[in-house]
Parts: sequence; C-alpha cells; structure tokens
Amino acid sequence: MTSELRQRIYQQLASVELIDPHTHINPLDAGSHTLVDILGYHYYTELAHSAGMPREQIEDPAISAKEKVGRLIEGIGPIDNTIQYSWLIDICQRFFGFEGDRLDASNWEALFDSSEAQMADAGWSDEVLRRSNVKSVFLTNDFDDPLAGFDTAKYVPCLRTDDLVFHLGKPEVRQRLEAATKVSVGSWTELREAIGVLFEHFTTNNARACAISIPPSFAPEPVSDGRVETALDAVLKDGVNSDESHLRALSHRIFWTLAEMCDQYELPFDLMIGVNRGVYPTGVFQGQDLYDSRVSLIQYQQLLNAFPRVTFPISVLASVTNQELASYAWIFPNVVTNGHWWYSNTPSIIERDAAHRLEAVPRTKQIGYYSDAYKLEFVAPKFDMYRKILAKVLEQYYVIDRSWSEERAVEFGTQVLRGNVETTFKIS
Amino acid sequence: MTSELRQRIYQQLASVELIDPHTHINPLDAGSHTLVDILGYHYYTELAHSAGMPREQIEDPAISAKEKVGRLIEGIGPIDNTIQYSWLIDICQRFFGFEGDRLDASNWEALFDSSEAQMADAGWSDEVLRRSNVKSVFLTNDFDDPLAGFDTAKYVPCLRTDDLVFHLGKPEVRQRLEAATKVSVGSWTELREAIGVLFEHFTTNNARACAISIPPSFAPEPVSDGRVETALDAVLKDGVNSDESHLRALSHRIFWTLAEMCDQYELPFDLMIGVNRGVYPTGVFQGQDLYDSRVSLIQYQQLLNAFPRVTFPISVLASVTNQELASYAWIFPNVVTNGHWWYSNTPSIIERDAAHRLEAVPRTKQIGYYSDAYKLEFVAPKFDMYRKILAKVLEQYYVIDRSWSEERAVEFGTQVLRGNVETTFKIS
Amino acid sequence: MTSELRQRIYQQLASVELIDPHTHINPLDAGSHTLVDILGYHYYTELAHSAGMPREQIEDPAISAKEKVGRLIEGIGPIDNTIQYSWLIDICQRFFGFEGDRLDASNWEALFDSSEAQMADAGWSDEVLRRSNVKSVFLTNDFDDPLAGFDTAKYVPCLRTDDLVFHLGKPEVRQRLEAATKVSVGSWTELREAIGVLFEHFTTNNARACAISIPPSFAPEPVSDGRVETALDAVLKDGVNSDESHLRALSHRIFWTLAEMCDQYELPFDLMIGVNRGVYPTGVFQGQDLYDSRVSLIQYQQLLNAFPRVTFPISVLASVTNQELASYAWIFPNVVTNGHWWYSNTPSIIERDAAHRLEAVPRTKQIGYYSDAYKLEFVAPKFDMYRKILAKVLEQYYVIDRSWSEERAVEFGTQVLRGNVETTFKIS
Ligand SMILES: [Zn+2]
Ligand SMILES: [Zn+2]
Ligand SMILES: [Zn+2]
Repeated sequence: MTSELRQRIYQQLASVELIDPHTHINPLDAGSHTLVDILGYHYYTELAHSAGMPREQIEDPAISAKEKVGRLIEGIGPIDNTIQYSWLIDICQRFFGFEGDRLDASNWEALFDSSEAQMADAGWSDEVLRRSNVKSVFLTNDFDDPLAGFDTAKYVPCLRTDDLVFHLGKPEVRQRLEAATKVSVGSWTELREAIGVLFEHFTTNNARACAISIPPSFAPEPVSDGRVETALDAVLKDGVNSDESHLRALSHRIFWTLAEMCDQYELPFDLMIGVNRGVYPTGVFQGQDLYDSRVSLIQYQQLLNAFPRVTFPISVLASVTNQELASYAWIFPNVVTNGHWWYSNTPSIIERDAAHRLEAVPRTKQIGYYSDAYKLEFVAPKFDMYRKILAKVLEQYYVIDRSWSEERAVEFGTQVLRGNVETTFKIS
Repeated sequence: MTSELRQRIYQQLASVELIDPHTHINPLDAGSHTLVDILGYHYYTELAHSAGMPREQIEDPAISAKEKVGRLIEGIGPIDNTIQYSWLIDICQRFFGFEGDRLDASNWEALFDSSEAQMADAGWSDEVLRRSNVKSVFLTNDFDDPLAGFDTAKYVPCLRTDDLVFHLGKPEVRQRLEAATKVSVGSWTELREAIGVLFEHFTTNNARACAISIPPSFAPEPVSDGRVETALDAVLKDGVNSDESHLRALSHRIFWTLAEMCDQYELPFDLMIGVNRGVYPTGVFQGQDLYDSRVSLIQYQQLLNAFPRVTFPISVLASVTNQELASYAWIFPNVVTNGHWWYSNTPSIIERDAAHRLEAVPRTKQIGYYSDAYKLEFVAPKFDMYRKILAKVLEQYYVIDRSWSEERAVEFGTQVLRGNVETTFKIS
Repeated sequence: MTSELRQRIYQQLASVELIDPHTHINPLDAGSHTLVDILGYHYYTELAHSAGMPREQIEDPAISAKEKVGRLIEGIGPIDNTIQYSWLIDICQRFFGFEGDRLDASNWEALFDSSEAQMADAGWSDEVLRRSNVKSVFLTNDFDDPLAGFDTAKYVPCLRTDDLVFHLGKPEVRQRLEAATKVSVGSWTELREAIGVLFEHFTTNNARACAISIPPSFAPEPVSDGRVETALDAVLKDGVNSDESHLRALSHRIFWTLAEMCDQYELPFDLMIGVNRGVYPTGVFQGQDLYDSRVSLIQYQQLLNAFPRVTFPISVLASVTNQELASYAWIFPNVVTNGHWWYSNTPSIIERDAAHRLEAVPRTKQIGYYSDAYKLEFVAPKFDMYRKILAKVLEQYYVIDRSWSEERAVEFGTQVLRGNVETTFKIS
C-alpha cells in the first residue's frame, strides 16, 4: 500500500548488507533452538504480563519450552497490535514458512515442531545471518568475558562496563574483576591498573567499543586522586552500604577512567542514557526497568569537552532527549547519534527522531540503527522495521519536500544504515 | 479531501455507539438551553479573552444570555482557526441546522433564536444523546453529591477527590465532608471512616471510577499513622495556613487511602496528572490553569507498585509525558492510557500521542478518548475529532505502513474507542 | 513532487511581501561581499567543524576570503544532507545563477569569482531585498548603538538587552552604558535612569521591540529597592566575581525594569528562552552554545501576570517547550508565539511546532517566522523553507483533515506570515 517511490527506496536499502553495532547475542549460542527462545524475549513476556498474565505462569521453572510457548500464546492476543508482535510474525514468516498474521491456539503447535526441526541444523546461526543479509554483529560482553571460542570478525566484542561503574560496591563484582585481571584491587592505583588490563584484553580480541547504560540522574565529573582513594577505601569496607557520596565519587572516577582508556585504546564509548533499573521490581525478567524523561545532555558537558578524541555514540531512552542529542552531535565533533533505543524503538517515535537527525546532524555522524537483539533471528525484523521508516522519511522529507533525487536519498540512507558503522567503529 | 480508505475506516468507527468515560455533565441539566451554554464554555471565553476581549465584558453578570452571545461573537473572530472553534461550528451544524462555517454579526442572532426553540424541547438531552450515538456518559461528582434524581446507567457517577486530597485544610470542605457522611472528623480514624462512607455511597449508586487531577509536583508516598495524626491535628487547628509539611503529609495519606478504598471497592482510580491551578489568576472562569511540563511518572512508582489490583487509567496534561505514559502502561499491568486531556486535546498532539500508544501498549489497555464536556452537545464534536484522527493513524501507520487489512484496523479502533471503556470500568 | 494543492498554497504564500521581525543584519553593511560572508555563517563553520574540520583551519586569521571558502568547501561534504546546506545552495542558485545541487572542488572557484562581481554592485543590498520580496528587516542593536546612518523604516531597530541583564558585572559594559547615556551609574536610581535614556533613544529612532536571550535556569521575580541597592553596590565593587545572589538580584531587577520600560514605551519584549552559552568553549565562533531542554514557562508566571499591557513575543529553543508556549499564548493575552529559533529551526521540528500553534493559538497571536540572518542573502532561503512547511501543514491539517477551503487556508497563512508582524510590532 505504500507508494512506488517509497518501495523503490526501501528495496535499495534492503539490499545493503548489514553490520549490527549493538546486540546481546551470545556468540557461542547465537541462534534460537525452539520458539521459546523467540517468545521468551522480554518484549513478549512483559507485554503479556502487562496485559494480565501472571508472572508465576510465565516464569514457572518447572515447565518445558513447548508448554511455556503454549502458555504465552494464550496470553499474547492482547498485544497483537504492538510493533513487537509484528517482529514475531516477521520471524515466523521469514524463517519458518509461517503464512498467517497471528499466532494462536490453532497454529502454534505445528509451527513449534517444524521450526524446532529447522533450528536443530548445525549451521542455523549462519543461515540466519545469511538470510538476514547480515555480515557481523556487535556483542555486549561482561568485563570478565574470556572472548574465546568464536570468530571475533563475525561476533565483534564490546566491553560493557555497567558493573564497573555502578556495582563495584558488590564483593562479587570485585572478585570477578580480580579473577579476570589477576590484579588485587586494594587501592585506586590497582583498580586503575585492573581496568587497563581489561582494555588490553578486549582490544587484543578485536573489541570495537566500550559501552554503558546510565540512569537519568548521572552527571559525571572529574574526581581527584585523593577523593577516589577515600571513596574506594569506604567502598571496600562497607560495600553497597557505603555513603552515597563515596559510591558516587567512585562511580564518577571509574567512568572518567573508562573515557581515558577509550582515548588511549582508540575505542568509541557508547553511552546509553536514561534508564532507571527495577522501577517495577515484581515484573518479569528484564521487564522491570523504566525511566524518568527529565534528563539533559548538559550533564555530559564536562565529559564531552574533556575527551575531544574519544567518539561517543550516544543513545537516549526517551524521545524528548532526541533533539538535544541531534543538537549536541551538530556542535560537538565527538558526539555521534546512535540508533533508537528500547522504549523509543517504535515506528512513530523512530520516524520523528530519525527525521530530525537526518536534517540536522552531519551525514557522517549518524548510526541509523542497532537491533539490541538477544537472539540472531531478531536482527532482521528489527532492521526491516527501521529500513521501512527510513525509506518513508527519505521519501517524504527529501524526495518530496526537498526535491532530492531518489539516488541521492538512497545514498544517504545507505551511509546511515551501514557506512557510518564502519567508519565510527573502524571496521575494515 | 481525505482518501477513500480513511473515509471508510472513519465511517465504520462513526457507527460505533459511544460510552464517554469522563465528562463534567450535570445529569439534572445535561443539555444546553441557549447558545450561551455553548459559547460560554471556557475554551471560547478564554481564547476570546486571550485574543483581546476584556474579562469584565465576558463575565458581566448584568447581561442576558443573548447579549453575552452577541458580545462573544464580536470577540471570537481571531480564534476561528482553532480546533475548539471547529467544535462550535460542528454543534451548530449538527444540532441546529447551521450551514455556514463561521458565526458572525450577520448570522448569530437568527441561530440563537431558532436553536433556543429547539433546546426548549423537554426531550432535548435524550435527543442529543441519540443524535450523538452516545449510550452513556460518566460524571464528575463532588464527594458530597447526593447522586439522586437521575438514571445512573445513563449518567454514570464518578467520585472526584481533589477537594479531599488538596483542600481539606479549608473548613468548608471538612464541613461538607461531615455533613455528607455524618462522621465528625476529629482524628485520622474518623477521617478514614468518613472516606469509607463516601465510597460506600458512591459504589451503591453505580459509581464506576474514583478520579483526581494532580499538580506536576505531586509525588505520593505512604505516611505512617503517627505522622498523619500529627498532620491532621495541625490542619484542624491552622487550616490552609498549616505548615507545608503537614499539608503534604495529610494529602499523601488521604491519597493513599483513596487507593486503598479503590482496591477494596474495586474501582479504577483515574489520575489526571500535571495541572497547575491559578497560574493566571485574573483570567476568565476556568481559564486560569496551566502547567509545568517537567513531570515524570517515576513520581508514581511507589503507588503503582503498592496497589497491583487497582487499575489506574492515567491522563497526562503535557504531550511530552505521553511516551512515559505509554511505557508505564507497557510494563505495569495496572496502568491504562486514558484519553487526550485539555491542552493535549488538539489534533496534531492527539495524532502523535495516539500513534505511539497504539503501537506500544497492549490493545486492551488503552481508553481512546473522553470528551471532558460540560454540556452534552460537546460530546459529539469532540469524539468526532478523535475518530477522524484515529482513522488517519490507523490508515497511515497500520494499513499503509504495516499492511494491515482495513477490517483489522477497524476492529482495533473499535476496541480503543468503545470496548476498553466497558472492560476497564466494568460496564455490562 | 509535492501535490498541486500544496504547490498552489505555497505559491500564494510566496507572493506575500515579507517583514522579517528578527535578524542580526548590520544595516551599514547588510549584504555579502564574497562567498565567505555566506559560508562563514556559523551554521557552516560549526557543522564542518563537527564533521571533523579543525577550528584552527577554519578560523586562521592569516588567510584570504577566497582561501577560506576553498577550505570550507573541502570540509563541507559531510553536511550536504542538512537543511542549512540547502539554504546555501538556494542562495547560490537564487542570487548567483548556480545550477548544481552541491558545491565542490570542481565548481566553487568560478562561483566565487562571478558572485563577487555581482555583490560589488553598489545597489546589491537593495537588489537582494527586492529579489527576496522583503520590505524591511528588524535589527538586533547593542544598547549603545547610535542607530545612525540608515533608513530605520527598512532596517528597523530593536534594543537587545542581554548585556544589561547578564553582563553588567563587567566594567566595560558599565562604561559603554555610561558613555551611551551620559549617566554615571553609581546607584540603582542612576542605573534606572540610564536604562530610561536607552529606551528614549531607541523609541525615538523607530525601535519596534526590546529583546533578550535567556538561559534555561532564569526565573525572573521582583526585587525590592533595598535589595537591588545592596546588589548593585556589591557588583560595582566586585564585578563578575560578586556573590551569585547579588548578580542574580541585579539581573532580576534590571529585567523587571526593562519590562516596566516596555510598558511605558509600548514596546513588545521579545523573550528568547533556553540557551546555555559556551557549553563547548573550544568550538568555532558562535558555535559554542547549546541548551538544557528542561525549562518551563511557569518560570515566567509572575512576569506575565505583572505586565498585562506588555506584549511578549516568545521564542523557545527546544521543541519540547513548544506545547507550553502554545498553551501560555492560548491563555495569557500578552503572550505571542514567535518563530522557530535556532536548534528548532529545522523542517521536521517546525512542522510539528507550527501545526500545534496553528490549531491552538488565536490566529492574531502567532508570528510565523523570522530569519535570524546575519546577512541579507539568508532571509529568502530561510523564509522559503518556512513557507513550504506552512503550505504543507495548511494542506494536510486544514484543507485535507478539516475540509477548509484553499482560500481560507491561504488567508490564515498570510496572516501568520505577515499580518501579525505588522499588528504585533505596530508597523504601519
Ligand atoms: Zn542493549
Ligand atoms: Zn475533566
Ligand atoms: Zn537572533
């Protein structure tokens, strides 16, 4: 039903091989095994839960994969309007030959069985990548990930640092750090050394980014050596019960140190700004986080000025922050707009956020999209949603409103979709 | 001039009989008597005032209905672009056979006279409901409303609680409470008992919701028995001049108690979040309130977690809060999106707010619209504005962008427009 | 590629002669001399810098105009997607006969030479006005501008007051004030007298507005005579190092005094709300400012109530504030919406901001656009961008969605584009 112009732009964008610059794929187990790996994605469990399905029923540890899928199908009717549901149907059609537009009691079981047989193939993950037109995906690795046993050109490591910045008060995090680095962390000097070991390990293994997700209240600033020593002493002694001021000082200094390491090791530092964790603590797994949209990039003013050589691909959780993101990317050479994150990853929001970035940010400084997928099968439907919106925006705001040629629009879309991933993360 | 597809979707939505889940209709005097009841609506007086008409001229108590309409017609030219003006013309055309598209010196007087004759008919209110395709409307009842003398199936009671939560410092409010409940309010135990009597009274009389409008700074939290006793003592003694901390503690505890009663009596609790009262104190009647858009639903985190069995249909005054509303409804089972309120009740805002809700919130958890009308004649034009926008969004984001069938789009729209009102408020 | 309807609306809007109600034109040197005056505009230097061009290269004082243009052309490729780039191409096509859609190494030099010859004509500025269909432009004059040597009907003075409100702590500002007014500023009485002299000077010279740009944290309130005397004493003694509370008290009182003078001299007071200066201090000239979008018009509640006879044309920097702006203009008689400022001056933002104003604010209280230009050549492409968007919004939201006639839509657009500039600023 879309115009022929939009369809042509879309088709040309769809032919571009993708590099997905942010996922949570497990490279040792990248594809799904049964439909439960698809339907168990938090988008379906949390939406079904929100629509009335009890958590106990969803998260019952005693049931089989098949039974769990059966239960979720029962609870999923009320969410068939959502864009997330459309990803599910896309996957079933694209990979498993499903022909309907809704999964229900009448058809899910046959699909479960036939798809399970397909996924059992040893080459399934590669088959998914091939059919999705995807060359490689970025990972989200814990800092103590050995990064072993997979092809880091296809599954590109990325150092995730939330634990270091926000959870070093927990003894188990410090123990993991010491185990991973062989550095005993008793002083700031040692802690800094340990962080350096992590960067050495990651960059040696083809890591292409450092990344972190950040609550709306965070406003990083430099912390002196003396202050961080005091803070670290307190945290080593009292852990998560340390005074808030000590925990904050330590967080800020570790964060600052990560930026220094990114500078030294020439890694982009992905900032994902705005999430409040555990707002709904009795929600389903991964369905408990929300946000306060009252956040500003002015909180990052000092950081952006202090590290002119570090590239900061920035994602924002709330669409209201998108204009600031575009404006900061328009002024600061080291700010790059990055994808459409989580609660902003729905069509009407992407449409307006993308439209503004495209018109206001240098074309070289926009990473159009990442899938944030946990299983490979989700890369294709999510990127396809984005490509359709990108085609719509290019059609309406460029070819129609600004009289661009179709070729010029496609060239621009291609750069945002693929080219800038290569240049920003130095993928050859 | 709209597409045939959009017109077909619209026509099917227009055939759905409506239940209006929030109005300020007086059930004993529901329809209008002369055009002054239409033109006296605050939207016209405040916009005419904003465009230059002095308040004294508008609110002169010495003039007749007809003279007041004549004066307003003189001042209303500069607002003929607004969507509110379009409701006025819709009413004049729909109910009174008006054929123009602007009211002016040349035509208002004839219309005043002919419409007055029509409205004098004893069955006028029912006629308006019939022509508007409306089955029933929810009311906004003061807590001491006797709820007598009308059909509560057609005019559904709703307990409005602003006075209890925000104005109990005023002696007249406490006197009204004591008079309505026959409970002498000298202690927290008694105050709580009095509130219980109100819920008993309202639910016995078919009330279907408890409701409140809330300033942006409000952040409810539980208050202990000891603390509320101290606060109430202070407020009984010093009234509205009590220390701010006492007034706040009492507000919070009464609010919390309302939520407990909603749980006990199985009433949804409508929260209308974001209004600052009296920002422009010399404005016309009901044209003095504005807002601060810096508000977050994170302020309601504790409440939403504490009352999992209470349904909270939430309205937000500023469009910037709409994404949070959709996200909270996507995660919290007890949050339902509710209508498009006041300063967000204009087409371009509704279009983007509705588009995001439709794509991100379970289809069962969205109440599309309420009219907020003071007179029955406004239900039809306001809902019609919404239906047209809903048809536009369903056409563009679903049938065109996502290849939905027209039937599926209409079914979805119908649920949002009508079905969810029935299920949320338990209308049989 | 736009519809015929939209083109017809646009053509009719394009035939309206313009008055530009806010620019930074130098009336003694209004047009450009070479392409460097065009390409040196901060939009191009800051975007090229953001895309990777070093500031030193851009701002090298040792190079010629032509060499600078050559350098900028080298760095400008990555911004050819931006709307700002489209203004550049529009200028080159409109005024200099350029026929391409991109400036590059192959064509800039010929254009530089041929355009320089054109601009050398003594009547160039008038020629630009004529070809741009512009009758007059408002200026932004320093408070000590002699306002001499130009036709104030064509170049309309406007008193810019940022220095008075925010920089009176600097000795050079006080010296400029004393030199301009012949009043020695040693007390509040004298300072107030000096401000009065400025208003006398400006209104005598056909000034049509007082204007100021304001940071997001500003929340003006009245300050007593005693308090401002203390504050001024401190500031006269310690300058910019005075205690923050003294600087703020003085700012607030001067600001309040400007409003009083606007009342007395019947000047509109343009408020441009939301800019943080120097966020990126190592950015290029005029490319260092950004913002915090967390600002509310509730901060201006006292002011708007205190000065009912002063018209406040208000611009907001962040689009999120646009709904508040429209709501405040809908309620307060003295608030007028004014243009689309700076970071909100891009098509997708203007489209949604304008759509909401048009539907919610009295038609007499909306100033559609101003160019903010530093050189006359920019007035035409910026207004043309706006006219195209205005035509799009009128087509879609009025003629299509609301069944307005084309004539009515054009009439409304014309008032917003031109008529309201005349009435608001009393241009005969
Ligand atoms: Zn992620
Ligand atoms: Zn209401
Ligand atoms: Zn300006």
